[in-house]
Amino acid sequence: MSQTIITPKTPTGTMELLPREQIVFQKMLDTIRQKFERYGFLPIETPVFEETNILLTKSGGETEKQVYFVQSTGSIKEGHAPDLALRFDLTVPLARYVAQHQNELAFPFRRYQIQRVYRGERAQKGRFREFYQCDIDVIGRETLSPAYDAEMPVVIADIFRDLNIGAFTINVSNRKILKGYLDSIGVTDAEAKAQVLREIDKADKIGWADVEKNLVAAGHTKLGSLLVLLKNDADNATRLKDLEKLCGNSAEAAEGLKEIALLLSTTADMGAGDVIRFNPAITRGLDYYTGTVYETFLNEHKNFGSICSGGRYDNLASYYTKSKLPGVGISIGLTRLFEQMRGAGLTGEAASNVKVLITMMDEKLSSDYRRIATQLRAAGINTEIYLEADKMDKQMKYASKSGIPFALIMGSDEKAKSVVAFKNLNTREQTEVQQASLAETIKKIIR
Amino acid sequence: MSQTIITPKTPTGTMELLPREQIVFQKMLDTIRQKFERYGFLPIETPVFEETNILLTKSGGETEKQVYFVQSTGSIKEGHAPDLALRFDLTVPLARYVAQHQNELAFPFRRYQIQRVYRGERAQKGRFREFYQCDIDVIGRETLSPAYDAEMPVVIADIFRDLNIGAFTINVSNRKILKGYLDSIGVTDAEAKAQVLREIDKADKIGWADVEKNLVAAGHTKLGSLLVLLKNDADNATRLKDLEKLCGNSAEAAEGLKEIALLLSTTADMGAGDVIRFNPAITRGLDYYTGTVYETFLNEHKNFGSICSGGRYDNLASYYTKSKLPGVGISIGLTRLFEQMRGAGLTGEAASNVKVLITMMDEKLSSDYRRIATQLRAAGINTEIYLEADKMDKQMKYASKSGIPFALIMGSDEKAKSVVAFKNLNTREQTEVQQASLAETIKKIIR
Repeated sequence: MSQTIITPKTPTGTMELLPREQIVFQKMLDTIRQKFERYGFLPIETPVFEETNILLTKSGGETEKQVYFVQSTGSIKEGHAPDLALRFDLTVPLARYVAQHQNELAFPFRRYQIQRVYRGERAQKGRFREFYQCDIDVIGRETLSPAYDAEMPVVIADIFRDLNIGAFTINVSNRKILKGYLDSIGVTDAEAKAQVLREIDKADKIGWADVEKNLVAAGHTKLGSLLVLLKNDADNATRLKDLEKLCGNSAEAAEGLKEIALLLSTTADMGAGDVIRFNPAITRGLDYYTGTVYETFLNEHKNFGSICSGGRYDNLASYYTKSKLPGVGISIGLTRLFEQMRGAGLTGEAASNVKVLITMMDEKLSSDYRRIATQLRAAGINTEIYLEADKMDKQMKYASKSGIPFALIMGSDEKAKSVVAFKNLNTREQTEVQQASLAETIKKIIR
Repeated sequence: MSQTIITPKTPTGTMELLPREQIVFQKMLDTIRQKFERYGFLPIETPVFEETNILLTKSGGETEKQVYFVQSTGSIKEGHAPDLALRFDLTVPLARYVAQHQNELAFPFRRYQIQRVYRGERAQKGRFREFYQCDIDVIGRETLSPAYDAEMPVVIADIFRDLNIGAFTINVSNRKILKGYLDSIGVTDAEAKAQVLREIDKADKIGWADVEKNLVAAGHTKLGSLLVLLKNDADNATRLKDLEKLCGNSAEAAEGLKEIALLLSTTADMGAGDVIRFNPAITRGLDYYTGTVYETFLNEHKNFGSICSGGRYDNLASYYTKSKLPGVGISIGLTRLFEQMRGAGLTGEAASNVKVLITMMDEKLSSDYRRIATQLRAAGINTEIYLEADKMDKQMKYASKSGIPFALIMGSDEKAKSVVAFKNLNTREQTEVQQASLAETIKKIIR
């Protein structure tokens, strides 16, 4: 039977891992999930697609151009327009979920959601068409205390410490501060305000001197005192005090500063103070945010961009319900982070999740190998039996390529003595273990 | 601002759960994954979509009609045909994965994969367009010992016991048996063979009398001795012996019976013998399978259909590689199982994964609540702080609706005495706990 071979490949813009990389990635996902639960968030999952009229409420936008539509064979044949599309983030599905199930949920509703999202991006390095987002949000009904904003960075700090990805800084600010201040000095036009924020946001890239030059060129001449303060690298407390002085005339700015003060004291109380940087220059592109905003950077890898961002919004689901649902959320883009870490050589291959390979030294002893495997598994040890009667050398190569750390070897000699040989495949060290206490002894050796 | 409200709903044919149901579902997923790892399987994940020419290799088929195509806005506008489609199972992606990465994998390659798959089914009860599959497969290069087939049901038995879903039976057979036997009595035509297998497969629904009648009507008059044996409800060992006698003239049937004998002894050795039923009447619809086949039923809910099926195949990835890759696999359709169990009232709502709600008795003590929360979380206790200064009654209702089992209450009186009140929200029992030993005491109470 001759058959044309189709070259197997993964679609552009997706990340597919080998098993030992997948184990590393899975551990990161598990850590994130465990911490989300530790801090009192509840799991939800939503379908990968939503009805198009639900997903595409906002007209125009950059995101909408990148939507993947979904259509069955039958529907295409009948000439219908697609009525389903893949989610491009977890926020729209959350909005739909909360609006739909609001009577069955307890508010404030704290949910976590770890799923993949989809964007029909142009193919280029570092751009993913499919990637994991790990989101937490707290949604209030009518109101939501800024104390919830204050706790978010504590969760994130705990996660990134556990993930062991090096030093990081969570930048926080509050949109009310600059907005209120600009109003108070007469920059009230929305477009003018947006322009100022855009320029300030560029400081990291182009430097403060150029920011100042651009602003003056655009006719913004009253920003001198603000810029002095923004570019001054003071500590959080000083910065807060200086801004309180500067913004004395704006009730809105004062409110934003009060919320930041609460965030700073909360994160300090909860042991995360040292990674928080109050940075009023971060403004987040999205108009969506109305108060607190977060951006997280790796200190040694600022080029990765923000690895975890979010903020406060006034009303989550105005397209789907008349209920007012203010919320605050933050999101880790894990696929991109993992890819960047891998590119920088920061993730290795894990050992296999299999701890022990029971080799087939002698096929006649198969029944013994099965009995031993059953014992080890019952004791919670991840165990594999090599079931082909291959040469020992081949079996050992298999273990080594798979990253299995230990091999159990038993021939008729060992069987006669009621022992097994237990070999550490990294150190090559071999121990004789009594069968009578097999599981306990092996558990000790493995640790 | 007046705005049209779009009624929020989930797409037809998807399962979306409330948080407390999601917790139940998630525990099932976790159990399955833990057991897969316990038995030595490695994780992989593949993208939700594949290139259409890779996914749709087989021409025609029922499955192909149900494919969901995926296309970005840009691609639709430019009038292209869709070049991506959602996976409809995990087997085609596995075939592509193994063919693509074969030089980097260790064989026999044992992988597990727990992801959702997609079918553009007609909308009807019990049919899902999006559902979880939990698959394990072992793939050999050139050859794969039938000992791998024999271990599969042990994994499944261990999982279903742990899932606590009631009594179940794993039906096993081997396609070589009937195929070889039919050849030996002169039923050699492929269509005639298929007809016999189809009729036999109906026995559960229409009864053996009708099966026999249909077969005779179709001209199959030599099947008397086989039917006597199939409808006889003998134990596995007797059945095996009887079939060995009956099939004495067929080398192929003898091979199938030898593989079944190995499976029966292996499952018995490994403590799963009692749930295995050697049932030569199961034939599995798919031509795909070439040896061992599995089907699993709940004893008290046969109407659920097979909740876990699979089998042996000769060559996994002939479309993508010239390497011969025989394998054996089995798959749990978890979404459908969960939905059926829920329909039958067999799944409840779980308690929240949050163990302790720290209530806000007195907003002035916020800093204390934060300190306590940090302590409990560091001790591994999932803890939430209620951060709104609401009435106690409202806070308790929130805990109860969320399913949080314990509340911690501390006002200024308790603070003065260095204690907290710790309340079991199910029993209403309240204990005074010393702050000095808070985490340890609470850990004990929670267990």
